[in-house]
Amino acid sequence: MSLDSLQTPCLLLDKQKLLNNINRLNKQLARFNVTSRPHLKTLKSVNAAQYMLGDLSAPCTVSTLQEARQFAQAGCKDITYAVGISEHKLPEILDLQNQGITIHILMDSFEQAQFVHAFCRENDCQLSCLIEIDCDGKRAGIKSDDPQLIAIAKILQSAELFSGVLTHAGGAYDCRSLDEIRAMAQQEQAAVRDAASKLERHQISCDVISVGSTPTALLGEGFDQVTEVRAGVYASMDLVMADLGVCQPEDIALSVLTRVIGHNQEKNWLILDAGWMALSRDLGLASQPGGYGQVCDEAGHVLPGLYVNSANQEHGIVVLPNTLSTHDFAIGTLLRILPNHACATAAQHAGYQVISDDEMDYWTRFGGW
Amino acid sequence: MSLDSLQTPCLLLDKQKLLNNINRLNKQLARFNVTSRPHLKTLKSVNAAQYMLGDLSAPCTVSTLQEARQFAQAGCKDITYAVGISEHKLPEILDLQNQGITIHILMDSFEQAQFVHAFCRENDCQLSCLIEIDCDGKRAGIKSDDPQLIAIAKILQSAELFSGVLTHAGGAYDCRSLDEIRAMAQQEQAAVRDAASKLERHQISCDVISVGSTPTALLGEGFDQVTEVRAGVYASMDLVMADLGVCQPEDIALSVLTRVIGHNQEKNWLILDAGWMALSRDLGLASQPGGYGQVCDEAGHVLPGLYVNSANQEHGIVVLPNTLSTHDFAIGTLLRILPNHACATAAQHAGYQVISDDEMDYWTRFGGW
Repeated sequence: MSLDSLQTPCLLLDKQKLLNNINRLNKQLARFNVTSRPHLKTLKSVNAAQYMLGDLSAPCTVSTLQEARQFAQAGCKDITYAVGISEHKLPEILDLQNQGITIHILMDSFEQAQFVHAFCRENDCQLSCLIEIDCDGKRAGIKSDDPQLIAIAKILQSAELFSGVLTHAGGAYDCRSLDEIRAMAQQEQAAVRDAASKLERHQISCDVISVGSTPTALLGEGFDQVTEVRAGVYASMDLVMADLGVCQPEDIALSVLTRVIGHNQEKNWLILDAGWMALSRDLGLASQPGGYGQVCDEAGHVLPGLYVNSANQEHGIVVLPNTLSTHDFAIGTLLRILPNHACATAAQHAGYQVISDDEMDYWTRFGGW
Repeated sequence: MSLDSLQTPCLLLDKQKLLNNINRLNKQLARFNVTSRPHLKTLKSVNAAQYMLGDLSAPCTVSTLQEARQFAQAGCKDITYAVGISEHKLPEILDLQNQGITIHILMDSFEQAQFVHAFCRENDCQLSCLIEIDCDGKRAGIKSDDPQLIAIAKILQSAELFSGVLTHAGGAYDCRSLDEIRAMAQQEQAAVRDAASKLERHQISCDVISVGSTPTALLGEGFDQVTEVRAGVYASMDLVMADLGVCQPEDIALSVLTRVIGHNQEKNWLILDAGWMALSRDLGLASQPGGYGQVCDEAGHVLPGLYVNSANQEHGIVVLPNTLSTHDFAIGTLLRILPNHACATAAQHAGYQVISDDEMDYWTRFGGW
C-alpha cells in the first residue's frame, strides 16, 4: 500500500493501532467490570465511534451540541454532554431528547440548576442532570464538600432531574510518573464517591458516578461505586500520552503525512508542506522536547531526535541534527509527523486517510458547535 | 442588532472594521503606486475576498491548492501559490492553468526548477515560476547572493518559465518597534531588488518583484522596482498585529462570541464556552500578556486586563483581577474574545457571523488542502 498517491499534507489513521488502543481500554475496564462511556470529541468521526462504542447505541460522551446532533443522527442513543450547560442550549437538548435520545447535561452552580428546573417546568419535560465535581482544581466543578452540592442536587431532585455526579481528572496531564497518575485516579474516584456519600446522607442517590480521562482510565484501579469511565484520546493516542508514559510513540494511530518541499543547506533545515495549519498550534506538554511533532519516516518509524521545530501556516521546519544532512531527505520525500495533541491536530482536518495492511479508506470528521 | 440569538461559541466578523482595514492598505499601496496582491489564506472566504480584491479577477495570493481551486471557481484569475512547489502538486497546477487561471508557483532550489522544467516539457506547457528569496533567515528561500539564484533562473528561462522573485518578511513579527518594522520593510525590498539586479546582469529580467507581510506592507516606504505587495491578516487584524503596534485592538474585525457557563468563586474564575477549539491553540507573541485572547464585552469594548488565561478543548478560563468578581458576569453573559492570531482562530470555524450596524450575514469559509 503506497502513500505516494495522497496529496500532502493529510491526516493518516492507522487502523490496527486504533483497534489495539480501543481494545486496551476495553480490557482494562472489563477487569473492573465498569462501563465505558467513550468521549467522541477527539476523532469526531462516526466510523471511529463505531469501533470505540462497538454498538452505536452504547453510552458515549460529547463536548459540543454538534457532536450530540451528529452522533445522534448516526444512531447514538445515550449521550453525555460533558460541558457545563448554558440556558441557550436547553431547547436543542430537549429537541434531541424528543428524538428519543437520552442526553445527560452537566452543571456546577445553583443558577444553572434553577434555569434547568424552570425550563423543565415550562416545557413539561425532564432532563437528566449531572453535577460536575472538581477533583483537582483544574477547571470547572464544585468540590465534593461544597455546601452548594446539596443545594443543587435538592432543587434538581425536587423535579426528578437529578442523575448523579461526574468529574474529570484533567490534572492527570500534569503528573510526572505513572505512580502519580495512579494516585490521581484514586483522587478522581474518591472525589465522586465522597460527593455521592454526602448526597446519600441527604437521601439523594446517584444513578451515575462518572469519572474519566485517558490516563486515569487506563491506569486506575478499583473503580468501586463508579458506574462509568470516560476517555477519548485513548483511541488515537498522541505524544502527550506518550510523554506521560501512558503509551509508547509506536502506539500513536494518528499522524500527518507531509512532503519535504525545501532545504536550507546552510542551516541544515528541511522545509515541509505541513505547517501549523496541518499540525495545529498545540505544543503539547512543557516537558516535551520538540515543537510541533515527532518526525517519522514514510512507514511510520520514529526518527529519533527529529521534530518539527517551528512552523508557519503552511511550512514546517525540521532542524536536522549534525549527524544528518538535507541530502538524506530529497525534495519530495514523504514523512509522517506524530501529533502532540490528537484532539487539536485532528481538528485541523476534514477527515482521515485510514490505512491498514491491505486497504485504504477515508473517514470524514466534522467540527463546529 | 442582538447577538443573543447566536449559538456560542461562534466567530464574529465586524464588517465596518474589515472595510476600514482593507481601505487602509489600499490607500497605503496607492500612495506608492504599487499593486496589491492580497493573501486570502487568513479568511478563506469568497465574500471577504470580494472586498479585499474589489474585483475577483485582480491578483491574489493563496497558501494551499484548496484555496487556489476555491477562489478560481469563484472567479479569481491571477493567483500566486506562495508555498514552495512539490512535484506532486504540478498536475493540479496545470489543471487550474488549463481552466484559464494564471497561476504562479514558487521554488528555491535547482531540484524544483528541474522537475518543473521536465514536467513542462512532458506536458508541453508553460508555468509561471517565481524564485523565493530569503530576506530574513526565517523560513524558506535562498539569499539574493546565493549562486543557485542564477542557476535556477537560467534553467527556468531556458523554457520561458521564469517570471520573477518573491520574498516574505516573516521576521517583521519579531520586531519590537515600528522603526524596526520600517527597517525590515527596507530589508525585504532590498533583498528582492538585489536579486533582480543580479539576474539582470545575466540578462534575466524579472516581470514580478513581489514582497509582503502585513507589517511591512502597511509601514513600508518607497517600494521602488517592487511590482506587487502581498498581505493577508491586514483585513481582519489580530492581537499579534496590535502588539506589534501595526493596529489598535479596536481595529480587530474578528472575535469569538462566547458565554459565561460557570464560575469558580474561590479562585475568582469565569468559565467560558470558548475553549481552544474555538480560539485556537495560538498563544501569539511571547511578549503578549494574555493566554488565548483579550476579553471584550458583548459590544466589543476591550475589558482591560481580562484575558482567556487558560483553555481546555471547550472551556476557557478567565482569571478575574481582584477588582472584579464573578457576580459581575452572570452565567449566560455574552463576551467577545479578540484572537491572538486571526489565521489560526478563523481556521477553527466554518464561517463568519458578519455584523454591521443594521444587519447580520453569514459568510462561509473553507479549510483543507
